[in-house]
Amino acid sequence: MYLAKVYISLKPTVNDPQGLTIKGALHNLGFSDVISVRAGKYIEVKINQDDEDKARGQADQMCRKLLANPVIENYSLTLNLIQGSN
Amino acid sequence: MYLAKVYISLKPTVNDPQGLTIKGALHNLGFSDVISVRAGKYIEVKINQDDEDKARGQADQMCRKLLANPVIENYSLTLNLIQGSN
Repeated sequence: MYLAKVYISLKPTVNDPQGLTIKGALHNLGFSDVISVRAGKYIEVKINQDDEDKARGQADQMCRKLLANPVIENYSLTLNLIQGSN
Repeated sequence: MYLAKVYISLKPTVNDPQGLTIKGALHNLGFSDVISVRAGKYIEVKINQDDEDKARGQADQMCRKLLANPVIENYSLTLNLIQGSN
């Protein structure tokens, strides 16, 4: 069984109002060293598949078909072998 | 300058309707090996600070004060030294 960790972020050229809002809030809290903030998504998918290559291929397909919007988002993923159920 | 990558996920005991919805959609797309999905946030913060310990301390404070809700969420962060501006 593999745990796929998927990191999705907006492409650098895409405007990120959520990140700008977080940046403003951090400045208001006194974190004046903050230069920029980009907000994205982090998704963990548990895959019942013991072949690492197949698990990676499935996770990649999931990103392309559903999890990420390839027009405006980049994604990366890591796979960790895990034990057990649920 | 450091880039802090912050990964925020719901604690295991907290219900995650967004993750359940994604899981259902993946099953509908034919990804029958998917056992569970947890949805979280991924935030990149660029910090104008050349001392790694100070940058890490600041990023940790940001998570506690704003980025994560410690009642229902766990967070982890990594720091990467980066060059340049903007």
